[in-house]
Amino acid sequence: MTRIGKLHTPFVVSLMFLLPACLGSQTPAKGLTAAEVMQRVIAATGATPPADTVDTLKAGDPSTVVTGIVTTFMDTYPVLEKTVANGKNLIITHEPTFYNHLDQQSQFATDPVYQQKLAYIREHRLVVYRFHDTWHMRQPDGILVGMVNQFGWKKYQNTANPDLFTIPSTTVGQIAASLQKSTGARAIRIVGDPAMTVTRIALMPGASGSDEQIKVLEKDDVQLLVAGESREWETVPYVVDAVAEGRIKALILLGHEVSEEAGMDECARWLRSVFPGMPIQFIPAGEPFHTVPHTSIQKE
Amino acid sequence: MTRIGKLHTPFVVSLMFLLPACLGSQTPAKGLTAAEVMQRVIAATGATPPADTVDTLKAGDPSTVVTGIVTTFMDTYPVLEKTVANGKNLIITHEPTFYNHLDQQSQFATDPVYQQKLAYIREHRLVVYRFHDTWHMRQPDGILVGMVNQFGWKKYQNTANPDLFTIPSTTVGQIAASLQKSTGARAIRIVGDPAMTVTRIALMPGASGSDEQIKVLEKDDVQLLVAGESREWETVPYVVDAVAEGRIKALILLGHEVSEEAGMDECARWLRSVFPGMPIQFIPAGEPFHTVPHTSIQKE
Repeated sequence: MTRIGKLHTPFVVSLMFLLPACLGSQTPAKGLTAAEVMQRVIAATGATPPADTVDTLKAGDPSTVVTGIVTTFMDTYPVLEKTVANGKNLIITHEPTFYNHLDQQSQFATDPVYQQKLAYIREHRLVVYRFHDTWHMRQPDGILVGMVNQFGWKKYQNTANPDLFTIPSTTVGQIAASLQKSTGARAIRIVGDPAMTVTRIALMPGASGSDEQIKVLEKDDVQLLVAGESREWETVPYVVDAVAEGRIKALILLGHEVSEEAGMDECARWLRSVFPGMPIQFIPAGEPFHTVPHTSIQKE
Repeated sequence: MTRIGKLHTPFVVSLMFLLPACLGSQTPAKGLTAAEVMQRVIAATGATPPADTVDTLKAGDPSTVVTGIVTTFMDTYPVLEKTVANGKNLIITHEPTFYNHLDQQSQFATDPVYQQKLAYIREHRLVVYRFHDTWHMRQPDGILVGMVNQFGWKKYQNTANPDLFTIPSTTVGQIAASLQKSTGARAIRIVGDPAMTVTRIALMPGASGSDEQIKVLEKDDVQLLVAGESREWETVPYVVDAVAEGRIKALILLGHEVSEEAGMDECARWLRSVFPGMPIQFIPAGEPFHTVPHTSIQKE
């Protein structure tokens, strides 16, 4: 969700992770364990994980020999089932497995949904690693690369600050409609005036938090923030107030999944160059939301 | 957002707040200061505010003599303007004024949106108090009363546990459509299968947090949770997993404002009995979201 920019060389990272020489980038991917794959994945990002990184093993035996890799925004139960159906056993997930950022599980000890999910992972000898912090820290940010490609915004991207885009003068509603078309999303929400015309956009996939989101909206050169999600008593009323004060500000909330999923498709593409010959597949978690069918309303 | 049920008698609360005898419930409301009004409001709930309550002065001079009271879900800038236009000067808001739960303001010292909002409050000598914890603690919960009335769900309400409702067998999609009709909401979102039939519903307005939301969804007698908002990597995927595991579980997210606003209309009704003769008005903050117009998509 948050992005941190500090980089180390792959060499230093390799040392830090005590990577044996045999795991260098030229080594064939066959016979690698899940732990070895993940060490190599993180090394290939060139990033140094923060001390409190969430990019850790979430479930399964790290010594499992990898038969194939699945990347996804989130390893929901349907993603686990599709992984098994496709003969893969290592899942690289951007978001948590167990319903909170740190994947804390003690509170779910007697929860049947949690128990069944964990049992499924064990029964099918799956291994789940999270790949969040270091994929965002990769230069360029792997999630951002995937989203910009999906949106078709590469031509509008600011070279010095890749989060910023300058587009031809367009209404906020038209931009939202264009994003709905490129992502296939059902539940995009707009805060502000859909008829307001803008040219300068900031893109912050995920849930960066209101401190970061408001800081970006404070900038004179940002008229529209496109984000994943935001708490509704924080960034949302900030934009409501800004508009009422006569400012050219707007917010599009794509939904967390919609705002990051293509970044894990990008991850699968990238991994194919890191692990030549390894079966690698992107399985989208999919947008979790349905909207109220308009026909249902009209019927009443 | 959270609700705590412990009660004290109005007598004990009056002592605790050192309310002078002249502020008893039979005293005319004329000439009361904002601080006196809020002391009386909280005393009338019969609740003891928690030590860290957010039900405090947010802006303005508490010694201001009240000309009229406005209740609202959130005192956005448009609500401030309508308050002034309607000749009132005390705003009783359920949610924050300054974009975070504790209304911390130091981070906004140089923020133009914040500065203009604060200047408007000062220029028009408005006074803002938050009324969140103690309105939820009132028995029955004031927000819940207003929402149940708006939904027309009183007849389905469980006597022992007023958060629970048993309705005639209905699909989740039909319930969402019915809630869209009764609230006028634009951006209701469904997690799970809209075609799933349910009878047992839990209603938790606002943003109770995933711990509380998941605990309720764990109950065998809850098939559908209707809530305000939820972080999209917490309660949302929990429901996705529960459904994939074959369980009868669903989630409707109304939006925070939609899930609580009618509770502040109820607050205005209730305040008229606490302050006979005082001008009291409910001004809705309104749903902050627009959805993508379907016509825009079809045009492309």
